[in-house]
Amino acid sequence: MSEGPLDHLIRMLAGLPGLGNRSARRIALHLLERREGLMHPLAEALERAAREILPCRTCGNLDSISPCGVCRDHGRDSGKICVVAHVSDVWAVERTGAFRGRYHVLGGLLCALDGVGPQDLRIDSLIARTEAVCADEGSDAKNGKAQQNFEVILALPATVDGQSTAHYISDRLRKFPLKISRLAHGVPVGGELDYLDDGTIVTAINSRSAA
Amino acid sequence: MSEGPLDHLIRMLAGLPGLGNRSARRIALHLLERREGLMHPLAEALERAAREILPCRTCGNLDSISPCGVCRDHGRDSGKICVVAHVSDVWAVERTGAFRGRYHVLGGLLCALDGVGPQDLRIDSLIARTEAVCADEGSDAKNGKAQQNFEVILALPATVDGQSTAHYISDRLRKFPLKISRLAHGVPVGGELDYLDDGTIVTAINSRSAA
Repeated sequence: MSEGPLDHLIRMLAGLPGLGNRSARRIALHLLERREGLMHPLAEALERAAREILPCRTCGNLDSISPCGVCRDHGRDSGKICVVAHVSDVWAVERTGAFRGRYHVLGGLLCALDGVGPQDLRIDSLIARTEAVCADEGSDAKNGKAQQNFEVILALPATVDGQSTAHYISDRLRKFPLKISRLAHGVPVGGELDYLDDGTIVTAINSRSAA
Repeated sequence: MSEGPLDHLIRMLAGLPGLGNRSARRIALHLLERREGLMHPLAEALERAAREILPCRTCGNLDSISPCGVCRDHGRDSGKICVVAHVSDVWAVERTGAFRGRYHVLGGLLCALDGVGPQDLRIDSLIARTEAVCADEGSDAKNGKAQQNFEVILALPATVDGQSTAHYISDRLRKFPLKISRLAHGVPVGGELDYLDDGTIVTAINSRSAA
């Protein structure tokens, strides 16, 4: 027997991240009870987002205009580029409101096992962007001012892939007069020592600050 | 600032049962990375299901044809009607494969607090259906054979609303020559006594069977 439209919908929903068969069935029924109010609008929202959302040509963030809202915002500090692996990381940093610079989304992390090399990520465009900023500030660079003014923050995950990607990018950026920084490692706010892995505790002890 | 297509999609997804902001964002990004393979097909699956899935005019189950697959299946026992509150309950019973009769979906439960009365549920159509079966078996009914052959199983939840709905339906069906049954109450298979409420334990003791 061929798959009916309901089974097809449930199978598609069940394939989404975080959903299984049971939650997919629940969502399908919820939608079928609200066809005009929710199901059609959701289908339209999906089509519209698929049509209109595009990656920013400067930083790789997703928005309905390119360059994206962050890159168009003149109130932001162009002298700070926060390098992240995924668009969701941009959103995570933006939610904090603690960073008022620009972003650069790599689109993933280097991973020899999965065959992800530098050419698969937006690394060349990060180098080009850096080069452009440094050329702009060329005269300042001579007296070392750019080095203080321009900063690339590697906000990559503290995993093997994240750290090897950070190493690789640091190496490629070393020739430019800029500051390269990484996120601090340590005990998460609200975290219990007892539940942390040894590596985090060792890093937190070594990076301790005056109380 | 008006809501962009991405925020709109995330807000719609976050309103689905079981999803929150974080999972909605994750799903939206997952879809945007797979526009042709997943996002358009999902939008189409939603539109198609919204257009084609309809409630069965006999039992209220959802299918792309009415009467539904269960009602059209001649291999099933028409002498047993399993009354359930929601379509998801039909699916739950069907997954077990233990029931080969027909269904009747009420579309909810009586609830004085929420103002749900008998006219809001598919109770009249259940009575009409029962009447039709009993009229068919009229000659048998006289010698009491229908009473053994026709059974209405009230598979309603063991909640206040579920039990008052079961009472109400039993009262309305009492005039017909049929057997009315309810699901057994007791310890769920795999359940620990320690975690069960007192009501369930008392019912399980009172309904104990020979070991």
